[in-house]
Amino acid sequence: MEVIKGGVCAAKGYKANGIHCGIRKNRTKRDLSLIYSEVPAVAAAVYTNNLVKGAPLTVTAKHLADGKARAIICNSGNANTCNADGIEVAEKTCGYLAESLNISQNDIIVASTGVIGLPLSVEPIKEGIPRLVEGLGNHSSYAAEGIMTTDTKEKTVALKFNVGKTECRIGGIAKGSGMIHPDMATMLVFITTDCAISSEMLRRALSTDIKTTFNMLSIDGDTSTNDMVTVMANGMAGNEIIVEENDDYKAFMEALNTVNVSLCRMIAADGEGATKLLECKVVGAKTEEAAKKAAKAVICSSLVKAAMFGADANWGRVLCAIGYSGADTDVNKIDVRFVSGAGEILVCKDGAGVEFSEEKAKEILLRDEIEIAVDLNDGEASATAWGCDLTYDYVKINGDYRT
Amino acid sequence: MEVIKGGVCAAKGYKANGIHCGIRKNRTKRDLSLIYSEVPAVAAAVYTNNLVKGAPLTVTAKHLADGKARAIICNSGNANTCNADGIEVAEKTCGYLAESLNISQNDIIVASTGVIGLPLSVEPIKEGIPRLVEGLGNHSSYAAEGIMTTDTKEKTVALKFNVGKTECRIGGIAKGSGMIHPDMATMLVFITTDCAISSEMLRRALSTDIKTTFNMLSIDGDTSTNDMVTVMANGMAGNEIIVEENDDYKAFMEALNTVNVSLCRMIAADGEGATKLLECKVVGAKTEEAAKKAAKAVICSSLVKAAMFGADANWGRVLCAIGYSGADTDVNKIDVRFVSGAGEILVCKDGAGVEFSEEKAKEILLRDEIEIAVDLNDGEASATAWGCDLTYDYVKINGDYRT
Repeated sequence: MEVIKGGVCAAKGYKANGIHCGIRKNRTKRDLSLIYSEVPAVAAAVYTNNLVKGAPLTVTAKHLADGKARAIICNSGNANTCNADGIEVAEKTCGYLAESLNISQNDIIVASTGVIGLPLSVEPIKEGIPRLVEGLGNHSSYAAEGIMTTDTKEKTVALKFNVGKTECRIGGIAKGSGMIHPDMATMLVFITTDCAISSEMLRRALSTDIKTTFNMLSIDGDTSTNDMVTVMANGMAGNEIIVEENDDYKAFMEALNTVNVSLCRMIAADGEGATKLLECKVVGAKTEEAAKKAAKAVICSSLVKAAMFGADANWGRVLCAIGYSGADTDVNKIDVRFVSGAGEILVCKDGAGVEFSEEKAKEILLRDEIEIAVDLNDGEASATAWGCDLTYDYVKINGDYRT
Repeated sequence: MEVIKGGVCAAKGYKANGIHCGIRKNRTKRDLSLIYSEVPAVAAAVYTNNLVKGAPLTVTAKHLADGKARAIICNSGNANTCNADGIEVAEKTCGYLAESLNISQNDIIVASTGVIGLPLSVEPIKEGIPRLVEGLGNHSSYAAEGIMTTDTKEKTVALKFNVGKTECRIGGIAKGSGMIHPDMATMLVFITTDCAISSEMLRRALSTDIKTTFNMLSIDGDTSTNDMVTVMANGMAGNEIIVEENDDYKAFMEALNTVNVSLCRMIAADGEGATKLLECKVVGAKTEEAAKKAAKAVICSSLVKAAMFGADANWGRVLCAIGYSGADTDVNKIDVRFVSGAGEILVCKDGAGVEFSEEKAKEILLRDEIEIAVDLNDGEASATAWGCDLTYDYVKINGDYRT
């Protein structure tokens, strides 16, 4: 497996584009993105579990019932959620794009992200689509920009990997900075691959993988209404099609997981207002469930997040979070270490504090990637969760997002 | 029922005091509090459900097994949690106090609040106890100050009420500003009453009431390790003792509930860094459980909290929170209004936005007590939850709490 360039255009047969069509007032920010497969592809998606669902998700779920898609269209600046005519606008968007690309409307994945409850006019989208299609090319980064909201960085990754003796490629782009607390997917992630895989196996691969990747990510505990992760696979790599859980499936899963973990880390590091990426690695758990609950609770704790912002080795808050997480564990066996590029330090042993150098701890916690390493000393299971610190800027960004 | 002065000394036969004994470096801040009943009292307490429990809670639970207590001692500045010798220190504290008051060690409730995982020396407590006991008097506010940590205001309330024809009194003090997200009690609340009630009925009254009061309060989603609510009842009012769920029990419950709701509101309004009290009232729910889940999710949402800080009528975040709350409800029926001393405004009807005056909304949201009124239009059940806004100062306070 090797990291390559190209994002969602890295795999064979995919083109992308992103333009400013006028949903946003800021004319320098792209707000409409398109990803297109030159040949028919199988596709799978997972959606938010929020009962309040964006209209585009309903339309996409309908279109993906047959496990096939050829294009993804996504606007930013408006979530098209809680609007009386939301479904109609999402359907019309697909209709105009289908016409322009000369494909079936049913083969289009549609997504929106931005403010909830603001009517979305289809006019700028309708007017922008011809230009969007005309400019299709090796423009993964235009597409990545077009889906950004409060994100400060493009999030993109691509890999090549082998399935049997055939070289395949997989690449993805993501957006997500606030309202990130997946109970499935709480952001937009678009992945393309030229690996040949059946739609059933693709669906299985995606829904298995998100349990340890996007579902272990939290910026602020708010599960969004609009988010989804979607993968298109067009088979152009020419490998023998994957139709069962064999070695080829394993190779694909490994590549998919690497893409997803990379995007998780990028999303966490670019959390709204964040100055640090936090990674909580829990080992020695009785069960995977216990490990996940503990890791997720630590990453979600406002107090832990604020302490990390202040580079304060306040490990008591880590123990507190594990204590209320619901994880079945013996709190008197827990060890905690803080780890970063500046070294590592043990701060808690068997559930009680140990003497440590505050100076050394500060040095470790001043770095911008912090690992909170927890050993429950209670079994063999493990889990990792990703998040970020809680900062003044998070409050600033969200204190007046709409205006 | 009538509000009176006196806090925990309002009821007959109670004295209190608070001193600086030296746990805190700041010599102007009291750090050790005592509440004492001149006659034997029945007592009940509820404790945090966090698996990581402060040592004082373990000792208190043991002492309260017989349903009786005469004194409460509490220090601030150190939580006495996750310390190898924590139980020993809590027991010694009770021992020194028992000697000084000439009562049984088993009749003492002990509590601590402050930093987790810092060894607590018993020496300043031992040295302070004689002075603490000597100064006992009508000093509820000294006791209230002695239990404060990041609180900026004393939290105290007292009432008189009738049980049959007998006038009784009940009063309480509380602390709590951060790490507040009860799954039971996530703060310290000490209540005294002179009402005569059996220990079994007192326990029942307290554990029933907290479900709709302290368990519906959240500052930051972090369920603390140390918190408890405790009530002492010494019977000095002279009413016929309450031993069953009759009208007298109802009268007592009403008074207890009024005290607890008052303290909840005070704690929420004084949440760490808070500038506003938020109250989410959910009506029209299918079940009380649905109402509670919805109300709690709204109050806990970082995005809602930040929007309220910015006086931004971002009702989409309210719907989003209800959507992921787990409440069984039809999201297409939800109405949302914002209410304050400046009026009220409908912002969402049947799950979709309605046109409203942003100017009027701003005026309403600039007040320091905001009600988020949600009608699920789905049944008859209701619930209220309390919280506060998320501000720069929350981050500041928690970014470097220990130093």
